[in-house]
Amino acid sequence: MADTAAASRTARARSWWGWGWADEHPDDAACAALGALLPGTLARPLPVPRVADLRIARPAVEPPPSLAHLVTDDPEARAAHAMGKAYRDVIRALRGRPGRIPDLVARPADDQDVADLLEWAGGRGVAVIPYGGGSSVTGGVEYRGDAHRAVLSLDLTTMDRVWEVDPESRAARIQAGVLGPPLENQLRPHGLTLRHFPQSFEFSTLGGWLATRAGGHYATVHTHIDDFVQSLRVVTPAGAGTSWQVPASGAGPSPDRLFLGSEGALGVITEAWMRLQERPHHRASASVRFADFGAALRAVRAIAQSGLSPANCRLLDPGEAALSGAARDGSSLLVLGFESAAVPVDAALAQALDLARAHGGTPSSGAGPRGDEAVDAWRAAFLRMPYLRDGLARMGAVVETFETAATWTRLPALIDAVRAEVGAAARAATGHPATVNCRLTHVYPDGAAPYFTVLAGGRPGDEVAVWDHLKDVATDVLHRHHATITHHHAVGRDHRPGYDRQRPEPFALALRAAKTALDPQGILNPGVLVD
Amino acid sequence: MADTAAASRTARARSWWGWGWADEHPDDAACAALGALLPGTLARPLPVPRVADLRIARPAVEPPPSLAHLVTDDPEARAAHAMGKAYRDVIRALRGRPGRIPDLVARPADDQDVADLLEWAGGRGVAVIPYGGGSSVTGGVEYRGDAHRAVLSLDLTTMDRVWEVDPESRAARIQAGVLGPPLENQLRPHGLTLRHFPQSFEFSTLGGWLATRAGGHYATVHTHIDDFVQSLRVVTPAGAGTSWQVPASGAGPSPDRLFLGSEGALGVITEAWMRLQERPHHRASASVRFADFGAALRAVRAIAQSGLSPANCRLLDPGEAALSGAARDGSSLLVLGFESAAVPVDAALAQALDLARAHGGTPSSGAGPRGDEAVDAWRAAFLRMPYLRDGLARMGAVVETFETAATWTRLPALIDAVRAEVGAAARAATGHPATVNCRLTHVYPDGAAPYFTVLAGGRPGDEVAVWDHLKDVATDVLHRHHATITHHHAVGRDHRPGYDRQRPEPFALALRAAKTALDPQGILNPGVLVD
Repeated sequence: MADTAAASRTARARSWWGWGWADEHPDDAACAALGALLPGTLARPLPVPRVADLRIARPAVEPPPSLAHLVTDDPEARAAHAMGKAYRDVIRALRGRPGRIPDLVARPADDQDVADLLEWAGGRGVAVIPYGGGSSVTGGVEYRGDAHRAVLSLDLTTMDRVWEVDPESRAARIQAGVLGPPLENQLRPHGLTLRHFPQSFEFSTLGGWLATRAGGHYATVHTHIDDFVQSLRVVTPAGAGTSWQVPASGAGPSPDRLFLGSEGALGVITEAWMRLQERPHHRASASVRFADFGAALRAVRAIAQSGLSPANCRLLDPGEAALSGAARDGSSLLVLGFESAAVPVDAALAQALDLARAHGGTPSSGAGPRGDEAVDAWRAAFLRMPYLRDGLARMGAVVETFETAATWTRLPALIDAVRAEVGAAARAATGHPATVNCRLTHVYPDGAAPYFTVLAGGRPGDEVAVWDHLKDVATDVLHRHHATITHHHAVGRDHRPGYDRQRPEPFALALRAAKTALDPQGILNPGVLVD
Repeated sequence: MADTAAASRTARARSWWGWGWADEHPDDAACAALGALLPGTLARPLPVPRVADLRIARPAVEPPPSLAHLVTDDPEARAAHAMGKAYRDVIRALRGRPGRIPDLVARPADDQDVADLLEWAGGRGVAVIPYGGGSSVTGGVEYRGDAHRAVLSLDLTTMDRVWEVDPESRAARIQAGVLGPPLENQLRPHGLTLRHFPQSFEFSTLGGWLATRAGGHYATVHTHIDDFVQSLRVVTPAGAGTSWQVPASGAGPSPDRLFLGSEGALGVITEAWMRLQERPHHRASASVRFADFGAALRAVRAIAQSGLSPANCRLLDPGEAALSGAARDGSSLLVLGFESAAVPVDAALAQALDLARAHGGTPSSGAGPRGDEAVDAWRAAFLRMPYLRDGLARMGAVVETFETAATWTRLPALIDAVRAEVGAAARAATGHPATVNCRLTHVYPDGAAPYFTVLAGGRPGDEVAVWDHLKDVATDVLHRHHATITHHHAVGRDHRPGYDRQRPEPFALALRAAKTALDPQGILNPGVLVD
């Protein structure tokens, strides 16, 4: 089997059980300080879990000699590939009850390796879980059930190269296993950028973004990674194929759109031609305060319908603004940003600020080309947030997010209902105060994507049950208000109940048929999207 | 059976064999004058064909009494539904050899009618060809072969209502059978517009646009109807379903994107929630002349990559500019237009014109808010063109268009190769001079969609064979230059050879499986997309 020493020699260690870098995690004292902010948390943080304390069974299968160099049964690697990074995943690790540990972790070097591993797994009844950065927050990279003889985590991160750059058409052919920073590092010498910056940028891969339809940097127009795809290469148990690298096509239903969002259930995306951009030379950003959240929603709608297309247009409600340190006076805060490689954007920002003022907003005096303090505070908090969540999880708190999208017409009542119903359920379930904050992450002419943060003292020991109950309440509210089960977090396993209710039946029939045709043995990420 | 007298009582008659309105067709003298411009055409125009001269067999099936009120076997209706409006269709009608005449034409009034007709057809082995405006130019609405007992043309145009308008979210629920003008007429009182204006606007339906991924008004960003879809309702032989009306979703592969472009092979789109816009209050347009087509391409690329997003950005090569009367001095002509409901667009036009000047362009002095003479000339010619094509067809000329899309990197060589190879093939096949003109209809940061017009004296009597040969040559050139078989004309039956070569095999497997699941009896538009 392969030596994983190289991975462990990296200068900075990833946390096997929590978000991101191990050395970024709050220490015990910091966790305790966080927990002290919430009634009903533990007196001391749960200890950082150790792989050595898990009872990890011997693998149920061995790879054939021809593939052994790609595969490891190292316990640390297996534990790190057992789950994603949702709150319920972190709690399960902290409580010593992680999801099923995969028997093996494979790191293919190229398409042929992927095809060979799929063929071997198909012949042995081994489930294959495609794995990029492992940052799923919807149970997308774990195995549940026992219908398969063994589980193989297919870690694509060795396939991390930018193969070709076409500067004239601004596109590149990129392997799917590359993480965000090394991807941008390989594009930088060409003066180009993908500019896809999800919160998980450091810890997620191009293939993961594509397979989950990740939401990215842009708050308007090209909000999902989907829009930057020229062509995909997919390896399936029934064969491999590549769509043509063209700027647009009307030849039948888009082949790429079937695999975008397929979450590893139809095939393994191994590379893609992606549309790139020049790095922006012109930038302008500002923040706008609103005394009234309803007025702020109307302002954002006016901006979203104006055609001005800001790159950043995030609205924080008073709780979210306070939590991030961006505004502590009870205001709602709108963070606006424009950018362009070609033309100045100050006039566009000024037009958007006029629309905000017309709806009662007060732009910050610090608005300027590099943004202002509120913008900076929000950005720093945004990247820090998952680490704080894990610190609070160690204190037994309930702290998690979920997101959706709905039309402008439905949005105010939806947001009110989520706050009221999920808040009440959290208070009832924990016996402690609970807050539900909201921000808009992406906006459209016809609606927006609200992102909710739930924060409550816990019912230590029952964290997963409490959260699963709150999630059921949230799913029911979303369903009644005709809001999608997810805007950019994918379905995974955790969103299946909402997804199954939402998906139109003809598409369900087509998807099941496609799954059977491409994955006849049913080995690919069983349980996501379809049974 | 239903009385079709109502249809024939309309004030203005559609041509059963050619484009659009019968009274817009050039008369014999005008046809002769057109033909005189090309060597190798007929001395006199082929006569306008009459349905009475066709030998139309009695229908091979009768509808059941419960559906008889929806169905007609009127010969005029049957002949008018036999084919689309490609050059090869017009020629076949002129030569008295139309495609297979459908046995029956049905006009369902609602979803239940559609479902009932599909159920009846499935039980009888009757092929069902969904039919909107009948403007297909790729053989999308005709039956070929003899695998079915009978053929039913399913004309959706009775389902022509806008059911609901949501002004706050700028969306409307619209029946699929509505033609362009009545659609806009129903939206106008709300101050809203779909702004989808294909060349076939008067003669095509919302459902047809959706099923064929039609290209529309906008030359940049939202170039296809796909981008304006919130939700689709689809009736299939295996059941009906509606996707959720949300501004965006990341819940699995997009269900709508499987049916967009499905060309009636997977189901019948019966209604859609569509994104609308306010009518633009601000407009600015101009034309720019270039002495060199290569320089014009570079200018258009700079504009397409600038993020300025003009609504109109069409580049005519010298032949196309002369043909439309927009420029007769050997220049290439770029037609630029900006529009907005919210903010002035003069600055954006000025920035685009600066980019054009930097690449050697000369903006017209007549640039202004309503455009200039070259723009007007081009627009008038654009709408008149299909009628002139039919006039030339009556003279036995070879005159047809095809379109594609390719990256900027591949575009110059592609355009040169099409001009050279298709031109040479046309000269060889007809023994006469031939011209191949090019314009760019839609542009992207990573490439553009060229539209080619072939014009040659004919080989009267062999028009279809000559054109099919030229199309084979064109398909081969597109394939070698990695250009899609179609950017917005759909696949139909005429594009199958190119489509089958282009489609990635995993998607082909998935599409065939979806077809079998949704249309188990194989009655829906047999022959398009899959066999």
